[in-house]
This record gives sequence, structure tokens and C-alpha cells, in this order.
Amino acid sequence: MSLDTSLSKPHERLAALLADDMAQVNALIRERMASKHAPRIPEVTAHLVEAGGKRLRPLLTLASARLCGYGGPYHTHLAATVEFIHTATLLHDDVVDESAKRRGRPTANLLWDNKSSVLVGDYLFARSFQLMTETGNLRVLRILSDAAATIAEGEVLQLTAAQDLSTTEAIYLQVVRGKTAALFSAATEVGGVIAGRPEEEVQALFDYGDALGIAFQIVDDLLDYWGGEATGKNVGDDFRERKLTLPLIKAFAAADDEERTFWKRVIEKGDQRDGDLQHALDLLNRHGALEATRQEALSWAAKARDAMGRLPSGEMRDLLIELSDYVVSRVN
Amino acid sequence: MSLDTSLSKPHERLAALLADDMAQVNALIRERMASKHAPRIPEVTAHLVEAGGKRLRPLLTLASARLCGYGGPYHTHLAATVEFIHTATLLHDDVVDESAKRRGRPTANLLWDNKSSVLVGDYLFARSFQLMTETGNLRVLRILSDAAATIAEGEVLQLTAAQDLSTTEAIYLQVVRGKTAALFSAATEVGGVIAGRPEEEVQALFDYGDALGIAFQIVDDLLDYWGGEATGKNVGDDFRERKLTLPLIKAFAAADDEERTFWKRVIEKGDQRDGDLQHALDLLNRHGALEATRQEALSWAAKARDAMGRLPSGEMRDLLIELSDYVVSRVN
Repeated sequence: MSLDTSLSKPHERLAALLADDMAQVNALIRERMASKHAPRIPEVTAHLVEAGGKRLRPLLTLASARLCGYGGPYHTHLAATVEFIHTATLLHDDVVDESAKRRGRPTANLLWDNKSSVLVGDYLFARSFQLMTETGNLRVLRILSDAAATIAEGEVLQLTAAQDLSTTEAIYLQVVRGKTAALFSAATEVGGVIAGRPEEEVQALFDYGDALGIAFQIVDDLLDYWGGEATGKNVGDDFRERKLTLPLIKAFAAADDEERTFWKRVIEKGDQRDGDLQHALDLLNRHGALEATRQEALSWAAKARDAMGRLPSGEMRDLLIELSDYVVSRVN
Repeated sequence: MSLDTSLSKPHERLAALLADDMAQVNALIRERMASKHAPRIPEVTAHLVEAGGKRLRPLLTLASARLCGYGGPYHTHLAATVEFIHTATLLHDDVVDESAKRRGRPTANLLWDNKSSVLVGDYLFARSFQLMTETGNLRVLRILSDAAATIAEGEVLQLTAAQDLSTTEAIYLQVVRGKTAALFSAATEVGGVIAGRPEEEVQALFDYGDALGIAFQIVDDLLDYWGGEATGKNVGDDFRERKLTLPLIKAFAAADDEERTFWKRVIEKGDQRDGDLQHALDLLNRHGALEATRQEALSWAAKARDAMGRLPSGEMRDLLIELSDYVVSRVN
């Protein structure tokens, strides 16, 4: 199932196919991130928006609307809404995580200050609600405001679950929905809703985005223990930050008394010494926690593929199915 | 025009008159500030929501809806929305200002951490958008999302205007609208909108809230230089924090060369010595800056009273007029 690397990546082909729509979205983003009165706002936002993220979330909205044959003017508003919500959460995440880098550049909280990151994030949240209100579609408003609540709830949950070895897989899934999947599923679902598609298709679009987001995040968490040169990830960051991600939750569930003592020392007490990361990796392998996590990522990618199968066939559907394979290609 | 202190205050009489509606609003606030998954959320929110603020903003919405003869079920949703937006901004303000106390109690950022304040604030913003979406009224959504953007913009503007002696009265007014008046005017305007009142009355309700909020904030800024035992304010906080409020802007505009040198040292450079506050107060008095600021507060209160005069007469209107007198009573 691994992709031929001579082909461009599916999200790049999606971006090429949706280039006209995406140009409109980018124009809308630039227009709405401006502020007549406070020049600090576009400075901070431009730093982040123009850092060249993949724009995956707005692409999902545009692809979903196109797949559903939407002919109206509001898919670009919804795509910009989704990107604004994403950018606002990044600004606030960097304050919460005390991050110094994002997408290879210094973070806004480092370049300006935490104050600017908090307030400009709030401004983008407000702008996103203005944008979605312009669509005049109340169901879309419900979906996106529910997603915003799930995102914030998941972030708080992640905060309180850190360093807590009693974190269950169910809590982990809730955190992952908040961090990633809630905005993915809202991004795809609203495309079907504004196109007025039947309920089964709207549900299939939600299921696709939800499963894609979960697969995406599980792969990210897995690579934190499994990475290497090819993945561009730095092994052991989550371990050092004592985050309870799926590999660790699975290994702790299978641990004997001695292993539990080890995990309590390094994760709960934060007493980490030379060789501990290697010992942790040995334990993850001994209990098959990495392989089980990998299987879970593959199974969510398969759910995404299946959900897409319930939608009208065509080029857009094929690309979205490819995308669900692509997100797990780094561990497949 | 000063009030007989043997009478209860107008917002207390408003609260008594609207006690049934307010009980519903409080129940809705408690219900919606909960979180199935993240118990940290209601802990933080309860700390703030139950600290016993005056609930002035939701009272304005309820009073406005009652004045307009609204008979539907959504005034309580809108009142709770307004209180959630207010609470979210307080949580974020305390992070931005690095405050240690709010309403006489330790702030949430001190009791928990900045992370919790940022994320729980985001959760309340999202909850407020869910609540307003439930009204199904798109115009109300537009008003409230515009207000949220004005609030965030005003806060960023305040951040960049601090310590900047080139701040004009126009910029000050923009900051004041963001800090205070935008939510006051949205709170009163939406009451008329859901009641379906004619455009002139909706405009009058907006004008009332806008002018009331501006008068309220100017008085607050004035008392920072003019306070005393009776006002419960600590004189000189804004001076020490080098904030450009109306008294200082007026005094700087009238300053001679020597005075400008003084203001640059204490405000721009932040080099403040013993006796500087007293010298600043002398300069404010010499140029009549405190009296001019006081006149401006009274003139906004008069605008609020006039706007209310364009609405149907009755007990509710009388109380809202009294409220506009009350907000300036500390300087009248």
C-alpha cells in the first residue's frame, strides 16, 4: 500500500485541482486577518499564515464541497473559517506549550509576546465566527461551534492527562478528537451540508474526516517513538514531556510491577536518567505496543477509506481515498 | 443628579425585577460551563462565575428584551452568551495583564496556570457561539460575532498603545469600545433584535449600550487619578502601568516642552521616581485634564439617557435611564 514516491503527494494533487478555489480562500484570509485599527494583528497572523502550512483543513472543505457538486459561493468562506480556527488554536497552543518553534520558524509568542498570541488568537476566533455567519446556514454554524468546543475541551483534557498514568485509551481518543479530528470532520461535513446532500452522505463525510484525523494523529504519536531520518521526527519528545500517548498507554496497561515502578518514576515523577528512553523503547517493543498502535492507525485509515466509499465516485473521491492511505504511509 | 444612597442601586433594582429570568440564566450558565470530559473546565469557570460579579451585561440583555416586550424563550440564551464572552475575556485578560487578583480573589491563572486560563477561555468562547446559534437568529449572530472581533481588536490596540504617548483620543475611544462598550451595546441591541422591534428602536438600544459602556470606562479611568476612600480605587495604578488613558492623553496634548520631557521619562521610558505621581496629578489639574475627562463622561451618560428616551416609556426604561446616571454618580 505504500505510495510510489515519483507521484506527487495526494494533498498536493488536491491543491492543484482546487487551485482556483484555494486562491479565493487565500485572498479571503488575507482580507479578513487585517485590522483597520491594530496593525499588530496582521503582523502576527501573517507570520503564521504565510509560514506555508499545507492548508490541509481548508483543502478538505473545498474537496468535500466539490465532491458534493456544490455550486454556491460559500465553500471559500467555510474553508477560510476552518483555517482561522486552526491558526487561532496554533497561536494559543504555542502559549500553552511554551513552544519556541513552529514550522521551522520562531513562534509568535517568542517574536512578540504571549499577550499578542492570546489576543490575536481571540481575534481570529471572532473572525472565523463572522465568516461562518455570512453563510447564513445555521446547521453549519452548529457544526463549527460544536467543533470549537470539542477542540478546547480536548486541549484542557490533554493538559490534565499529562503525566497521569491512569489515562485510558478512551481519554486518549477524546484528546485526539479535540487536537485533530474534530476540525477535520467539521471541515469535511460542512462541505456536504452547504451542498444540501442527503443525510447518509453528510454522515459519511463526517466519518471520513473523523477517521482521517484520528489516523493522522496516531501516526504522529507513533513516530515520536518510531521515527528516524525518513520521518523527520525527533524520537522521544513526548517521552521527555511525559505525554500519555497511545504507545505508552498500551505498554503501561501490559506492565508488570517492576515496569510500573519504572513508568511511575519517569512519567509521574519526571525523574528521567540516561538510558531511560532506550529502556522505554524496549518495553514498548516487548509488549508489542508500537505494533498495536500501528494497527490502530491502519484501522482508522481503513475506516476513512470505507466512509469515502459511501460517496459519489469520481476523481475527487479517489484523491480523498488516496489521502487516507497517505497519512499512514509513513508507518506502512 | 447624585443619587439618594438610601435607595438601592439601579442595577440592584433591575436584578430584583428580572430575578426569574436571571435565575434561568444562572441555571443555563451552570449547565453550559460543565464539561463531560474535562473537570478542570467547571473548576476554573466556577471560580470566576461564582465570585459574584454584578452580572451587569446579562442584566442589560434581559432588561432590553423585557423593555421590547419580547415573549420568546431566547433572551436567556443571549444573556448567558454575553456573560460567557465576558468571562472568557476576563480569563484571557488576567493572562495578558499577569494579574494576581480579580474581584478580591486570586485569579485563575494564579490558582491553576496560564494554560488553563487560555484554554478554558477558549472553551467559553466556543460555548457562547453554541448558545447564540441556538437562537436561530442570524442578525443576532452577526452582532455578537462582530462584538467579539471588536473586543479582541481593542485589546490588541490597548497592548500596542501602552507606553505610547502618540496615542490619540480617537485611539483611546477605540480601545474603550473594545474593552467595555462593544459588549454593552451588543447586549442591549440583541434584546431589541430578537423582539423584532423597528430599526430606530434597535439603533437606540445600540446607542444606549455604547454610550453607557463608554461613560462607565471613562469614569473608571478618571477615578484612577481622582479616586479616594469613597471610590474604593487605588490612585495611580494606570500611571504606574504607563497606560494611556483619557486624563493623561489630554494633559500630554496641552504639555509644554518641560512637561513633555517629564511624560516621556515616566511613561515612555518607565523611569518613575518618588513624587512623580504627585507631579503628574498637578499637571493633570493644571491643564484641567481631570475636569475635561469628567465632562466627557457626563456627556456620554447624557447620550445614553437621550437614546433611552427614543424607546417605549415604562418602568424598565426609567431604570435604564437611572443606570446611566448611576455610572457617572461617582464623579458627579
